[in-house]
Amino acid sequence: MTAGRHFLQIPGPSNVPDRILRAMDYPTMDHRGPAFADVGRRALEGMKSIFKTESRVVIYPSSGTGAWEAALVNTLSPGDTVLMYETGHFATLWKSLAQKLDLNPVFIESDWRAGADPAAIEERLRADKGHEIKAVCVVHNETSTGSVTPVADVRRAMDAAGHPALLMADTISSLASIDFKHDDWGVDVTVSGSQKGLMLPPGLSFNAISDKAMKASETAGLKRAYWSWADMAGPNDTGYFPYTPATNLLYGLNEAIDMLHEEGLENVFARHQRHAAATRAAVKAWGLEVLCQVPEHRSPVLTAVMVPEGHSADNFRAVTLRNYDMSLGNGLSKVADRVFRIGHLGDFNDLMLCGTLSGVEMGLRDAGIPYRAGGVQAALEVLGQKFDGARAAA
Amino acid sequence: MTAGRHFLQIPGPSNVPDRILRAMDYPTMDHRGPAFADVGRRALEGMKSIFKTESRVVIYPSSGTGAWEAALVNTLSPGDTVLMYETGHFATLWKSLAQKLDLNPVFIESDWRAGADPAAIEERLRADKGHEIKAVCVVHNETSTGSVTPVADVRRAMDAAGHPALLMADTISSLASIDFKHDDWGVDVTVSGSQKGLMLPPGLSFNAISDKAMKASETAGLKRAYWSWADMAGPNDTGYFPYTPATNLLYGLNEAIDMLHEEGLENVFARHQRHAAATRAAVKAWGLEVLCQVPEHRSPVLTAVMVPEGHSADNFRAVTLRNYDMSLGNGLSKVADRVFRIGHLGDFNDLMLCGTLSGVEMGLRDAGIPYRAGGVQAALEVLGQKFDGARAAA
Amino acid sequence: MTAGRHFLQIPGPSNVPDRILRAMDYPTMDHRGPAFADVGRRALEGMKSIFKTESRVVIYPSSGTGAWEAALVNTLSPGDTVLMYETGHFATLWKSLAQKLDLNPVFIESDWRAGADPAAIEERLRADKGHEIKAVCVVHNETSTGSVTPVADVRRAMDAAGHPALLMADTISSLASIDFKHDDWGVDVTVSGSQKGLMLPPGLSFNAISDKAMKASETAGLKRAYWSWADMAGPNDTGYFPYTPATNLLYGLNEAIDMLHEEGLENVFARHQRHAAATRAAVKAWGLEVLCQVPEHRSPVLTAVMVPEGHSADNFRAVTLRNYDMSLGNGLSKVADRVFRIGHLGDFNDLMLCGTLSGVEMGLRDAGIPYRAGGVQAALEVLGQKFDGARAAA
Amino acid sequence: MTAGRHFLQIPGPSNVPDRILRAMDYPTMDHRGPAFADVGRRALEGMKSIFKTESRVVIYPSSGTGAWEAALVNTLSPGDTVLMYETGHFATLWKSLAQKLDLNPVFIESDWRAGADPAAIEERLRADKGHEIKAVCVVHNETSTGSVTPVADVRRAMDAAGHPALLMADTISSLASIDFKHDDWGVDVTVSGSQKGLMLPPGLSFNAISDKAMKASETAGLKRAYWSWADMAGPNDTGYFPYTPATNLLYGLNEAIDMLHEEGLENVFARHQRHAAATRAAVKAWGLEVLCQVPEHRSPVLTAVMVPEGHSADNFRAVTLRNYDMSLGNGLSKVADRVFRIGHLGDFNDLMLCGTLSGVEMGLRDAGIPYRAGGVQAALEVLGQKFDGARAAA
Repeated sequence: MTAGRHFLQIPGPSNVPDRILRAMDYPTMDHRGPAFADVGRRALEGMKSIFKTESRVVIYPSSGTGAWEAALVNTLSPGDTVLMYETGHFATLWKSLAQKLDLNPVFIESDWRAGADPAAIEERLRADKGHEIKAVCVVHNETSTGSVTPVADVRRAMDAAGHPALLMADTISSLASIDFKHDDWGVDVTVSGSQKGLMLPPGLSFNAISDKAMKASETAGLKRAYWSWADMAGPNDTGYFPYTPATNLLYGLNEAIDMLHEEGLENVFARHQRHAAATRAAVKAWGLEVLCQVPEHRSPVLTAVMVPEGHSADNFRAVTLRNYDMSLGNGLSKVADRVFRIGHLGDFNDLMLCGTLSGVEMGLRDAGIPYRAGGVQAALEVLGQKFDGARAAA
Repeated sequence: MTAGRHFLQIPGPSNVPDRILRAMDYPTMDHRGPAFADVGRRALEGMKSIFKTESRVVIYPSSGTGAWEAALVNTLSPGDTVLMYETGHFATLWKSLAQKLDLNPVFIESDWRAGADPAAIEERLRADKGHEIKAVCVVHNETSTGSVTPVADVRRAMDAAGHPALLMADTISSLASIDFKHDDWGVDVTVSGSQKGLMLPPGLSFNAISDKAMKASETAGLKRAYWSWADMAGPNDTGYFPYTPATNLLYGLNEAIDMLHEEGLENVFARHQRHAAATRAAVKAWGLEVLCQVPEHRSPVLTAVMVPEGHSADNFRAVTLRNYDMSLGNGLSKVADRVFRIGHLGDFNDLMLCGTLSGVEMGLRDAGIPYRAGGVQAALEVLGQKFDGARAAA
Repeated sequence: MTAGRHFLQIPGPSNVPDRILRAMDYPTMDHRGPAFADVGRRALEGMKSIFKTESRVVIYPSSGTGAWEAALVNTLSPGDTVLMYETGHFATLWKSLAQKLDLNPVFIESDWRAGADPAAIEERLRADKGHEIKAVCVVHNETSTGSVTPVADVRRAMDAAGHPALLMADTISSLASIDFKHDDWGVDVTVSGSQKGLMLPPGLSFNAISDKAMKASETAGLKRAYWSWADMAGPNDTGYFPYTPATNLLYGLNEAIDMLHEEGLENVFARHQRHAAATRAAVKAWGLEVLCQVPEHRSPVLTAVMVPEGHSADNFRAVTLRNYDMSLGNGLSKVADRVFRIGHLGDFNDLMLCGTLSGVEMGLRDAGIPYRAGGVQAALEVLGQKFDGARAAA
Repeated sequence: MTAGRHFLQIPGPSNVPDRILRAMDYPTMDHRGPAFADVGRRALEGMKSIFKTESRVVIYPSSGTGAWEAALVNTLSPGDTVLMYETGHFATLWKSLAQKLDLNPVFIESDWRAGADPAAIEERLRADKGHEIKAVCVVHNETSTGSVTPVADVRRAMDAAGHPALLMADTISSLASIDFKHDDWGVDVTVSGSQKGLMLPPGLSFNAISDKAMKASETAGLKRAYWSWADMAGPNDTGYFPYTPATNLLYGLNEAIDMLHEEGLENVFARHQRHAAATRAAVKAWGLEVLCQVPEHRSPVLTAVMVPEGHSADNFRAVTLRNYDMSLGNGLSKVADRVFRIGHLGDFNDLMLCGTLSGVEMGLRDAGIPYRAGGVQAALEVLGQKFDGARAAA
């Protein structure tokens, strides 16, 4: 028994708001009955507004990993070369998944301290005279590092190279938290999941699909059934699904879409930016270092913080969980035990952030990590700037 | 606005009890944190008790269709022959899925009015001298027809034929409603889903895996990532998952497992048998015909009822939904518009069944289907027999 | 562990619909903050539409018993005479409560088999030349017997007698189930509660107050604090309360009011009438007797059924609860063990009623009560008549 | 639409934990059926463990105000003198309520900056040679000021004066947050409510009753019905109630009692003390003044903070609500607009407190209240001291 509310400050699953939990807490309905069509259509149409696309969106009952697989098996053939970029752990997992599916990923390696470099992608594409590369796959917000890849710039790089590959973007931890424009940015397949910016429990995943990608699926040689876009398309057109959908999560999804539009997507994005700025101010005041070294790549969704050499980030996290009932994200693979990750995404506000940063500051002390006090104080100052105008006017 | 509770009497998703909805209505937790291990272990161990197996169970965030795919891609290689049996629409869909995945299904055709015939399977296997057939796939409870295949007899037939193929059984609509013994019956891969006897919303699916099937997965040539048993095994051993699980559905699953054991699995099975008997008594009294012609194959989970020639089962269902707020299952494919299906599974009791049968009886009248009154009355008599002993003793 | 949904067929608390439970399942808010005013105003205004009044409604955090007390202590003085009518157990309790509060009730006795007789009231009032009687108190729907008092006729009787007493009506089990018109019928204080037609859990009670009653409260001599209308009036005018209101029940109340208007109050009343007619048809078919002997007084909300001499209604109810998981109302006081009461009110529909009557019919058999089979069948015929026109047209 | 969770930091209603909301979110049951007895008994027995009493506890469906009324009307007679103590707004309201009920309160006045002074009470009692005073009524934790009255010392003062009056204590905002011992401290009637330390929504209130008080009720002359202890006693003895209880709130109450014992009452009290100390450290760092001037009377439940002359506490609260979505308590009556109140009670933890104090610190700035930065920082230091031992040991 621990009093009060747990602080779930991993970079997803994010905190599920009561409205969404309650929307899901309704009897499951007949997914083939007439009343379901409205539920399905609202979800499918609503997700277009979130992806900022006019073309097709499909919804899977699966984790985000399933939507990675769907993006590849619908568009590619065995042995196809795909260009992927090692922005961190999740980019690496996507690459492994591609290998398991009999694809041939070319992996641009990196030190995990920045988003993908469009220039490096352009260089590789220019070198690929025979257009062996069938797809370029990037992670928009790399959850393991807190680095954002400029997807629109990747598209520009591809166009500059005159390369016909498909552009695929993983927005699992960015969608509905960081601005993303499937159509305007010329993305062919966008991959996403329910448990981050969409504020839902895990269990739904998404593909947004350009006409070019849909066309590619007609001739793609990889085998598929559960993930087949073609099988989805017909039933989806009237609001239904080819197999039983995760009905109660769809109830929640429709509530989430409503909530995002009530707040306004641009306000949502600005809120995430502001919280990230306050968090970075705290990190700086503590005298610690943010993992992502490129300022304009630093994530609005999470901040990965390096602990000084000789100290254990995992011990710090364990102490913080035990003493302050807060979950923080761990360092994965290359940065295991070297960083901890603060999630500041989803259904989140200023005072929740202040509580979060207070927990980090006290945890640093309790775990014996060298730091300077004053991080929370620094964050308060950044947060307060929003209201300076009102104060001046008053 | 319709007053009162909707009667969801399709053969799944079944009615989700309040205890399960409330269990799911809790904040999502850190699926990599220490507290999650208990959630994961309870679910994985608990499902073994439901499948009656000592070997491995895996849980996917997906529909049951995903678990069909998982069973095949983990054990088979491109071009492999599988023996499947046309018990109805879902057996046919599983066959189509096998074809999409580059397998070669041999399909034993039928008129959809019985479960699979073990003798027919035995005959095919005896004829397969070269052991081209790598797996025999049957549907335990065919949801589209209400016919049960005697899975233990299929195993006996395979053994009698001395055939080494794997035995796979789909228990999506039977598990936790009809007795099933993965180990005792020598099943190699059992496929299941959350939204029927397990009383959950859709969104989880399962494979129970024999050692022989696990061994087969080491050399199986079909490509897999999301569905990979091997990737699941390691994390599962400590209660975790290789990718984000559907946390809130797992909360519900643990509640469901507790509820099933509180009632007692054998009591659950007996309850389903009794409700099916009462339903068939009603059908007989109405002068209508049950689709399944083999008495011992008639399903404890649902009853598919034929409407007389010249009448529309779908119109009857629409009238019943409109007038009495009850959803019934439709006839699929071969029996479209010829049958309706009454679900009597999951979290269900005598008075809910009486309400259901009353809705059918009134709907028959309202839709102009020829019938004799008295079906509900006949059901009351069957239901009451349970208490005859107590009356005699009183 | 009992599978399926409990049938709560007592005459209140009635079944609380999921929408209302979910509306209540939200964090409690600051009842003095700006956002609360809207909650309070919606509840106070909404209840006027349910009472069909333009004058004041007050809401107490209390049971209906509290609203009985409030009606009396706000309007009367120690030793005042009130004319009350013994329609059953609850009328008798209200009389006892009046005595405890130092009032002098004159009680018109009856055999509990009808609503109040306006002629008898008129006679008493005519005899009261000195206007000693300060209030006439009747129970609109007597929950213990299933008899309805014609309140409009009581007002006519009072007017015919030219008597200035206040008219008070208890609508605890009738409001939002049986038509009631506080203003049109000239009622001075209407008493009600949350857990019947309003479909809420118990915990809120109401007074609707005519201007005449409000005026009387200015000089009434009984002491009051918690129940004081005067203290309520000021804060209520802006949507607030003088002490902490039962916030979460108010959330539910606002949802209930919306639901009633979505269905339409007249439709709600007609639904109750139809279910009562079907229930009485079942009782007649069983060969049993309805307690209320005056056909036009028979309640749309509940039906009290007499068991034959020498049989125990309470044993029947215990058997029905044990065998079929259904709660029925017991006989109270004068009719203890002689009647059982079937509630058919609130969030209720045809198939729930059929399940209910099926449980009664099976329970009668199991308990060894002499009866004729066929009650449910008779009810089906009454229920189906609603759709005869549609059938004829089809 | 405001993102994230509202900070409800008024001194009650406190934040209702999810476990309690979910426990309440179940169908209402038959409060006269056999299954209810267990619900009722658990609540009635459980509350004894919270009041630390072996004698009777009664539970009303009402606000705390009702339990004030119940305490008086059950034990006193018209015109009786009661000694009350003006610790603040709520003590004053209780006095007004006594006047409305025809009692004669003698009110010891104060400046609202301390709890009741037992010496002043003793002096009055010694002067009351004729034992005209029938009851001494004190507020344990005065919610309007954040001052605690030492109830055990009041009992000692009464005993020292050899005065036979009853001792009544209002623990509406202290019970289950500050240690209270009904039996050991010789309290005769303890009044409480559900929406503070018990972590429930408002709607339940309580009296704990000594044998002496119960005895007094036999001859007390004030009239009572709804509040009658005598009417409660019989049904309560078997777990039932004389009128419909607030069933769903009782579900929540039983969950609350379990949660308090799981944490351990002494741990709960220590947690409140620690949070109050951290809050006072923040107030001191801001350069502001706590309303309560007697250090040992300062409340573990809330802290009332004075704003400098010439500044508006209400404007500060409005700014804080608008900018940071946090509700704070207002100054009432004598201290209207002069103080704001920070609630730190109920289901609350360190990081929620840090978020709360951050909101206050930013709100002070935004509202233009003169303050020194560093309050949150000071609180972090106090909170961290709990873990110093563990750090030293590590």
